[in-house]
Amino acid sequence: MKTAEIVAVGSELLTPERTDTNSLWLTGKLNEAGVEVMLKTVVGDDEARLEETIRDALKRSDIVITTGGLGPTEDDVTRQVSGRAIGRELVYHDDIEAYLRERFRAWGREMPDINKRQAWVIEGAQILPNPKGSAVGMMVELDGKLLVVLPGPPRENQPMYLDHVAPKVREMAGEIQVRRRVLRVSGMGESAVDEVIAPIYKAYPDVQTSVLFTKSEIEVHLAARSRTAEEADSVLEEVAGKVAGVLGMAAFSTNGETLEEVVGTLLRESGKTLAVAESCTGGLIGMRLTDVPGSSAYFLEGAITYSNEAKIRTLNVPEKTVAGYGAVSSETAEAMALGIKERANADYGISVTGIAGPDGGSDEKPVGTVFIGYADKDQTRSVKFIFPGDRDLIRWRSSQAALDYLRRRMLKAETA
Amino acid sequence: MKTAEIVAVGSELLTPERTDTNSLWLTGKLNEAGVEVMLKTVVGDDEARLEETIRDALKRSDIVITTGGLGPTEDDVTRQVSGRAIGRELVYHDDIEAYLRERFRAWGREMPDINKRQAWVIEGAQILPNPKGSAVGMMVELDGKLLVVLPGPPRENQPMYLDHVAPKVREMAGEIQVRRRVLRVSGMGESAVDEVIAPIYKAYPDVQTSVLFTKSEIEVHLAARSRTAEEADSVLEEVAGKVAGVLGMAAFSTNGETLEEVVGTLLRESGKTLAVAESCTGGLIGMRLTDVPGSSAYFLEGAITYSNEAKIRTLNVPEKTVAGYGAVSSETAEAMALGIKERANADYGISVTGIAGPDGGSDEKPVGTVFIGYADKDQTRSVKFIFPGDRDLIRWRSSQAALDYLRRRMLKAETA
Repeated sequence: MKTAEIVAVGSELLTPERTDTNSLWLTGKLNEAGVEVMLKTVVGDDEARLEETIRDALKRSDIVITTGGLGPTEDDVTRQVSGRAIGRELVYHDDIEAYLRERFRAWGREMPDINKRQAWVIEGAQILPNPKGSAVGMMVELDGKLLVVLPGPPRENQPMYLDHVAPKVREMAGEIQVRRRVLRVSGMGESAVDEVIAPIYKAYPDVQTSVLFTKSEIEVHLAARSRTAEEADSVLEEVAGKVAGVLGMAAFSTNGETLEEVVGTLLRESGKTLAVAESCTGGLIGMRLTDVPGSSAYFLEGAITYSNEAKIRTLNVPEKTVAGYGAVSSETAEAMALGIKERANADYGISVTGIAGPDGGSDEKPVGTVFIGYADKDQTRSVKFIFPGDRDLIRWRSSQAALDYLRRRMLKAETA
Repeated sequence: MKTAEIVAVGSELLTPERTDTNSLWLTGKLNEAGVEVMLKTVVGDDEARLEETIRDALKRSDIVITTGGLGPTEDDVTRQVSGRAIGRELVYHDDIEAYLRERFRAWGREMPDINKRQAWVIEGAQILPNPKGSAVGMMVELDGKLLVVLPGPPRENQPMYLDHVAPKVREMAGEIQVRRRVLRVSGMGESAVDEVIAPIYKAYPDVQTSVLFTKSEIEVHLAARSRTAEEADSVLEEVAGKVAGVLGMAAFSTNGETLEEVVGTLLRESGKTLAVAESCTGGLIGMRLTDVPGSSAYFLEGAITYSNEAKIRTLNVPEKTVAGYGAVSSETAEAMALGIKERANADYGISVTGIAGPDGGSDEKPVGTVFIGYADKDQTRSVKFIFPGDRDLIRWRSSQAALDYLRRRMLKAETA
């Protein structure tokens, strides 16, 4: 099996605030090709350490990928240091300079002189064009090993990897195929999921299974390796089917789809429309729904009714409901869901009202108290949650709960 | 200045799902003591690579901290490998075994035999007791350098670091204090910012300056070191002031605040209120504004008017404006901003309408075309952008542009 190391370059990645995430995506892609990542390094703008890191990595592993440090400023040193690490000079490419000048001109700007730095390339390297930015990537083969030098921004390095590096990696890795699949689960805890699915994954020791907890979901990751992708896929299909079977409605996604994608598909396929009224989530649910391209087919309108006046004015929540039960109550949640459904003339209305904190909690309604409302042509309903966590997490979990409630209601309606 | 490297051990940290976060907390603590982290490594249960990593790190840096790999199972190899890396034997501590047996007894269990592995300690190492778990830590001084071997779980390694490692690190680092500051910039490119501020940071070689590009902002990171925190703060204040001075209105934040926090502060301090109408951003602006605790004081209402009907119905956009100029036009953007301002009875209304893609673009209005609308009591205005990037990035940049436009208008009104 071929091995890889990933080197992230940038002093900002050595601060207490930032972590390298490029390596996660790259690891996924390398694993898919059957290549194992053996070591990851984060190094700053320190030339000696970077040079040593690249040189050592190439001694130990078959594929070495660096990300970052290709910008136009003086502290961007990956270009020259990676050349030095493999004993090669940099050569100046007039065509890259011309291309950069053209790009800047298209943006209506003159190219700053410092961008000329980005026209230097390691001698003999394959140049990886960058349609999304000014730093080209580089790929060098050395005695059966591969050094790949990529820019830092994911939107630049990911297409570059897919278009130019992945084919080369596949060629090196040969016939082993690794396929992965992710199931997502809502409304169950990590150990509960593990208990239910353990008998399945124990019966398939060749399928690597892990249960992970993310901020509001449990994910079940499956990985199968085989000589052909078809064989691996077929084992995965079998295991994923069994796992989904025992999890029932809690498994909202069996192939990595997000909850907003799943809800979008249900709406599109049934030809139904949706409108959303948000208080404490402040637009998060609308944002998630409209993250999905084509969502305009089913998402009609959202109202972010943060103030009581807005709830009354825009959603027709009766003044006495807000006054009598409070803005955070099942009655207000239901009136909000009904109000936005009527306003938008949609098939479904959902709503969220709650206390995301840090202030505003009381003994009766502590921070984390959230009501989700639901309305369709026949009925209005609501459900109450008390979410643990900080403001961010409470808002996220509220959005997840609202989308999941809609999903479950739609599936129930289907089977009723 | 003393330097450090951090080595995270564990194959699970080399999967596509997990990242090492211990190093962030440790970096914060080391930085506070004036120690700079120069390199971070993640290595799996691979003995040769781990040994080489620890040995190289000790050659390059003053302090080396490993986390993880101290469990009782066979793939926990940090104990023996770190001993080997510094050429020392492990010695068996009967007292640790006795202590572990006692702990297990207290939990009502018999100690499994494999836990005896955890009684082996590097010869001559200071033993760091672990009240929260079964793996003791180790600290070894070697010719003025320090090797620290910590368990992986944060709740075990953090108290261990604070109680036993931090005092030693402070003793090694002496009296140096490091303080950091972040300025954020909108409406200028990375190279333009660098060009403008280079004369300043070149005049302060002791202040470490880096210019970073995030998805829609430029960040200027400053770090000053001095014998006292006050001295470092005062240099930082001076440099930050000069940098903000040359950047002018483009520097929206001089102490790390986000754009939504800056806008929120402007609104709160002037006692003004805001309402937002969003089309292509789908709730993102509302979400960002309400991310700020206390935003209910100034954020009244948001409308996510995705369909034309919603723009007409909820925002009173004249039907002939949408029909005549299109939903994506300066006329519609202005009518949306005015409409939401009126509906919410707010001081300011802002709006976004645009084409986030991937579909819906045309020659005249390509994907990325976005209009930002603005309305106050005196006037209605708009501005057009063509943003590069994918759907996510176009939406993010649109939200940033809308918040920044409001900020600039408010500041202009103030100085007018």
